[in-house]
This record gives sequence, C-alpha cells and structure tokens, in this order.
Amino acid sequence: MKPLGPVPPQFEAIEGELAVGGRKASALVREAGGTPLFVYSRAAIAARMEALRAAMPERLAIHYAMKANPYGPLLEFMADLVDGLDIASGGELDLAREAGYLPREISFAGPGKRDGELTAAIRAGVTLNLESENEAERALDIGRALGVAPRLAIRVNPSFEMRGSGMKMGGGAKPFGVDEDRVPALARQIVDAGAMWRGFHIYTGSQALDAEAIIETQGQVLDTAARLAQEAAVEVPHLNMGGGFGIPYFDKDRPLNISAIGAALAERFAELPPVLAETQFAIELGRYLVGEAGVYLTRIVDRKESHGATFLVCDGGLHHQLAASGNFGTVVRRNYPVAIANKFAAEAEEEVNVVGCLCTPLDRLADQAMLPRADVGDLVAVFCAGAYGASASPASFLGQGPAREMLV
Amino acid sequence: MKPLGPVPPQFEAIEGELAVGGRKASALVREAGGTPLFVYSRAAIAARMEALRAAMPERLAIHYAMKANPYGPLLEFMADLVDGLDIASGGELDLAREAGYLPREISFAGPGKRDGELTAAIRAGVTLNLESENEAERALDIGRALGVAPRLAIRVNPSFEMRGSGMKMGGGAKPFGVDEDRVPALARQIVDAGAMWRGFHIYTGSQALDAEAIIETQGQVLDTAARLAQEAAVEVPHLNMGGGFGIPYFDKDRPLNISAIGAALAERFAELPPVLAETQFAIELGRYLVGEAGVYLTRIVDRKESHGATFLVCDGGLHHQLAASGNFGTVVRRNYPVAIANKFAAEAEEEVNVVGCLCTPLDRLADQAMLPRADVGDLVAVFCAGAYGASASPASFLGQGPAREMLV
Repeated sequence: MKPLGPVPPQFEAIEGELAVGGRKASALVREAGGTPLFVYSRAAIAARMEALRAAMPERLAIHYAMKANPYGPLLEFMADLVDGLDIASGGELDLAREAGYLPREISFAGPGKRDGELTAAIRAGVTLNLESENEAERALDIGRALGVAPRLAIRVNPSFEMRGSGMKMGGGAKPFGVDEDRVPALARQIVDAGAMWRGFHIYTGSQALDAEAIIETQGQVLDTAARLAQEAAVEVPHLNMGGGFGIPYFDKDRPLNISAIGAALAERFAELPPVLAETQFAIELGRYLVGEAGVYLTRIVDRKESHGATFLVCDGGLHHQLAASGNFGTVVRRNYPVAIANKFAAEAEEEVNVVGCLCTPLDRLADQAMLPRADVGDLVAVFCAGAYGASASPASFLGQGPAREMLV
Repeated sequence: MKPLGPVPPQFEAIEGELAVGGRKASALVREAGGTPLFVYSRAAIAARMEALRAAMPERLAIHYAMKANPYGPLLEFMADLVDGLDIASGGELDLAREAGYLPREISFAGPGKRDGELTAAIRAGVTLNLESENEAERALDIGRALGVAPRLAIRVNPSFEMRGSGMKMGGGAKPFGVDEDRVPALARQIVDAGAMWRGFHIYTGSQALDAEAIIETQGQVLDTAARLAQEAAVEVPHLNMGGGFGIPYFDKDRPLNISAIGAALAERFAELPPVLAETQFAIELGRYLVGEAGVYLTRIVDRKESHGATFLVCDGGLHHQLAASGNFGTVVRRNYPVAIANKFAAEAEEEVNVVGCLCTPLDRLADQAMLPRADVGDLVAVFCAGAYGASASPASFLGQGPAREMLV
C-alpha cells in the first residue's frame, strides 16, 4: 500500500458523492457532456484569496501567474480578485487581453522573448521583466522604433535561493534574470535611456511548504532590492518579490502557514529602508491560488486483475495529468490525492492501481492506493488539478485530444 | 562538460550547414515560415525501412506504431512502406483513415478503449487487440448489435519481459493484456462466439539496444504463442510479436544489430511448430522507423552569461521536446544529440547550456555541452526528434502553441 496525498479540506460529499461548488460530480459530468473533465471551483479560489488577503499586509499586491492555469473563464474570474497578472509569452498576452486584463496590470517574464513578443508587449504598455542585457537592448530599440517609452523592470538572478522549494529559480548560474553584480549598471542604462523604469523582479523558487524558508527569502529579496537600487542610484517603483507558496500534494505535506509569512512581511514593511519607502510590493502566485480548487474527473472503463493486482483503467490519463502521473520533472513518483468521486463518503476497502488509457506504462494516476470498491462506470477524482494540469500535459499524445474544462 | 548523444550518421553538411533531404536547415526554416520546426526526412525513413527489410525474414510483416509520430504527411508516406498500422485510440483511427490506411491493415491496442472507440473500430473492420475479458465481452456485444463479426486478437501479458528495454511492458502485474494463464479460456470463448479470430499480440518492451535481449524475447514470444494456441486448441492466424527496437539517444549508445535479430528470427521461422506453420508474423515499430529521421530546429533568441556559465536561450523548448528536456519518465537527465545547425561542420569550441524559452528550470535542451560558438540568430538542431516529439509534449504550456512540421 502506498499513501495518497491529502484531499483539500473544502471538498464535501452530497449524498455520498463528491461535490464541487455545491453540485455532484456526476451532474457536472453530465452538464459538461462527458469525461475526462477538469472542474474548477470559483468558491474555492475566492476563499483562498480571502484568506490570503487577510494574512498579508494590505500594502502587498497579489498577482496571478497565469502559467498555472490559462483557462479563459478562470482567467476572467481571477481578474476581479487579483491586483495584477504575470505572463510568460506572447500567447499568454493574447489570452490575457481577451480575458479583459488591462496592459498596465500585466508583467511579462520569460528567458526567450522573441522580438515579436517584445513589440506586442511594448506597444500594449505591458511591463517587461528583462532577462538579460541583450533583451534590454532589444526592448529599448523596439521602443524607439515604436516611439513608445517601454515599461521595464529587471529580473534579478539572486545569489540566494529558497530553501526547500520544489523548483529552484535562483542561486548560481541560471538562464533567468541578470546576475546581481551586473544589475546596477543595467538599471542605470535603462533609466538613462528614458524608459519607464519599473523596478525589480526577484523570483527565488516555487512550491515551498516551509513558511520559515519563505520568510527568510523574502527578507533577502527586500535587502537585495534595496542594495541594488542604492548602488544604481535608482528608485524602485515596483518590486515583484516572486512567489513560491506551495500546496500539499503528497502524504505528510502540510499546508503553508501564511499567517506567519504575512506577519513577518508586515514587520519588514514597518521598517523599510528609505529607498523602498514608496515601493509597490507584489507577490506572484499561480499554483497557490488555483491548484487546490481544481478536480480532474475521469471515468473507469475497465477493471482488471493481473497477477493478483487490481487495475482501474480510466478514460483520462497523463495526457491531461502529466505531473500527477509522476512524469514531469519528478524523480520518485508519489500519489496525488485521488478518490472515487461517486463513492466519496465510502470507506476505503481495497488496494488498487489507477491507470490512464494510454498504451504506455508511464500512464499511472495512483499506485497501490486504498480506495472504496470501484467498477466500470465509476468516476475517479484526481485533486490538486487546478494548476499545471490541462495546459501542462501532452493533450495530443496517442490521438487523445484535450479534456473538457468548466468553472463552477 | 557533459557528452552529447550521437548525431545519426545520415546527416550531412552543405556549405558547412546541416542539410536534411539535400536542403540546408536555414532554407527549410525559410520555407516553413520560421522556427521552431520539426523536419522529417523521407530519405532517412526509406533507407531505414530498406535496411530493415534486407535484415528481416521476408515472412515478417513490419507495422508502423503511429503513436511515435502521427504527422499527416508522414503517416501517408509510411502507408506505402509498411505492411500494417498499429493505433492506440479512436483519434488515431480517424487520422489513419484520413491518411489512406485500409481498416484491414490496422490493429488497435490500448488498455482504456471506450465503447465508442470499440464501435468505430468494429464497424470499420479494424483488428482489436483485446486487453481484458471485460473488453472482449464489450466487443462481442457491440459486434452483435452491429451485426458484424469483430476481428479480435488477444493481447497477452507475458510472464517474461525484455531485458534492457527502456520501458518494460510485460512480466508481473500489468495494466496491459491478459495474464497468460487466462488467455486459453478467453481465446476459446472468442472463437466460439463466432468472432473473426486473429491471434495474439505480445508486447514485451521498447527502446532496447541489445540484440541478444530482443532475440531471446522473440523466442519466448514464439514459444508462448504456440503453447497458448495449443492449450486453447485455436489457430494463430496472426502474431504481433511487439517491437522494442531502440535507437541511440545518448553518449555510448550503439545502434541495434538488426542483422543478428533477422538471422535469429529466420532460424526460428525455419523450425516453427505446426500450430504456427501458417501464421502471419509481424513486428510493430515506431521510434525505430522514424525517430532518427527527424530534427527539431529552434533559433537562439538570447546568449547570456551567468556566474561564468553561458546560456543559449532558444525559441523552442520542452513544450515540443519533453523527452529531450529530460522530463518524460527520466530519472537522470542526459543530453540528446544537439548541434548548431548553421555551423554543423564547425569545431566545438565552448561549453554552453542550451535552454528553451519557457520560464521554468525544467526547460533544458543540452547541459554543459561542447558546441561551436553560437550567437543570437543561429539555429540549434536537436536530433532523434522524429518520434515522441511534437505529439508527446505539452504544446500549449505557457501559451506557446505547436511547432511547425514538415516532411522533406
């Protein structure tokens, strides 16, 4: 037996069945027209945002990193909840504009921005988080050609990284941002070139569950921004402090203590150095805002035995759930939270392997999991499916195509 | 410094530049309208098929497993070269029909076939490789409802597996096929039900580079098919012996010795037991037929230094090259063969990291690789891109969208 990850606490059962937004999973599948289906809960996202606002200093802006989930209706819903949007490509810029975001709310980070993407962003008035001197030069050239002063910030490659983060984005040689020692010169150059100087973007890691590590890193981010601004003799109109807030995916993962983070940040904000006194501060979160609000529903099409093991074969799989299958940058596969959606209140009574429909042994949704007895036609729910699911999986693999998605 | 995988030998330089199908990479990119671009070579595929035909016994049919690469023009091109097509979903059935394959040339394996997919396949006259007793029952029911005798084979979950294969598909508890001990009863049931009995499908592994392991496994496959047929007292009209032929991706990988495999198979075919005397034999290959015939071309949009390391940032990345980035079922990341396409004949002179445009540290195309000096605007080639590239990667991730593809 291998443990399952923790089901996010907001999910309830109605008549024994998993419900999202007050509606039973089976009804949602009927309305969507079938499985596989991603369901995202407005209520869960709103509750998460409310708790976050309550915990964080009022001065801190909260941005949505749309790479986590670019589904149109969700993107529109987020627009009313957050203070800004972080994008990572020209394609995301198009989606953001369609969803009604104003360019001045948008900032664009990403190490491989093409000239066409820079042009679209500068023309629209989006802030560019510059990843290199070369990119700065190209942005300034494009701005001059367009007759527009580009809104420019520098993404800093910090000399430190976030302890315990799932994905390290700073410390040592990295493709992201500009090494600290070269930042002051570049900042001066940008200001002197007449661009709209926006400040710094310092991203240090993602998917951290240790509040102390985040507190420590945020302190370092503030210190670094202040030091770089002083060295460059520039102001810091805006400081994007990165994200990194993780969610519990696996057994023994504990929810992040955001109260501790908010309290520490409030203390730091109360004693800011003069160079940051007027700064607008922001954090950018993707997974933390929407990850636990999503459920992936897939129907069991076969139940089979092999050498004493039971397999539940589903109509979905890794083509929608690459990370849950354990194949996206994972060394040791562990089970996400998984349940039998239409037997959500039932006791676990047997050990099964939940696999997808793809003809590859990589396609696993749960290994040796204890679940209620399930048969052909039952619905499997994979939780923590609101971020890095549909858009971060190879939907065309083996001719399968994309999943349905809905926001309830 | 970390080694690169071996560039497939058929690629030549024209005026110092990588050429595919006799045309320079830069010209191909111009014709395609830009990068990122997958280029697949007809000549390379045809040469591979010719060598394979020469090595294998004439009696052995060669099928194409289209999951490796479902690009329409390539699929059409393969139709004239191979004896059959293996599909893994209803979506692949649609693509196969569009490409002109006849249903009687097609067989369909996959553990999660939905009723709709079974219906479409049975109506068309496609052979189903049945994965379970439940699926057999559903197929027979659907056949009866349609008034069609379905073409049915049993996929056997063999009690052995292929030594040294990159992906094990047999041996022990598996979601694929029917355990050997239950196969005879199911075979009898299918024959007695009046279906068109097609025989067995025994798939044991993939991406093996050890000819001895393949020879040994093919022997076991023949023994197993004969034994199961005798126990069930059924004929074996067709035996799909699986695939497993690997290609060299990484440093020190050596090409598979297909002459040895063909010679061993010819010996076995010369002394077949009576129950297999009339059997049609097939192997199904995907990666081996098309993998080395494809190149992924991506343009360098930034060249940057960080803490003494050089990064070449490209306009492509893991959204088209998930496996090459080391994130698709890989434990230890190794470099695929990579080159600077427009400096293909130049000497390697510096150590660089080639990364994609995605804002994630997972997006790496080559780590600490020795390459000729390359700058913004140069083209990076990733080889072995003909299989499990475009369709096996998360094309929508970070709003990027699919790559261009062309067959030359």
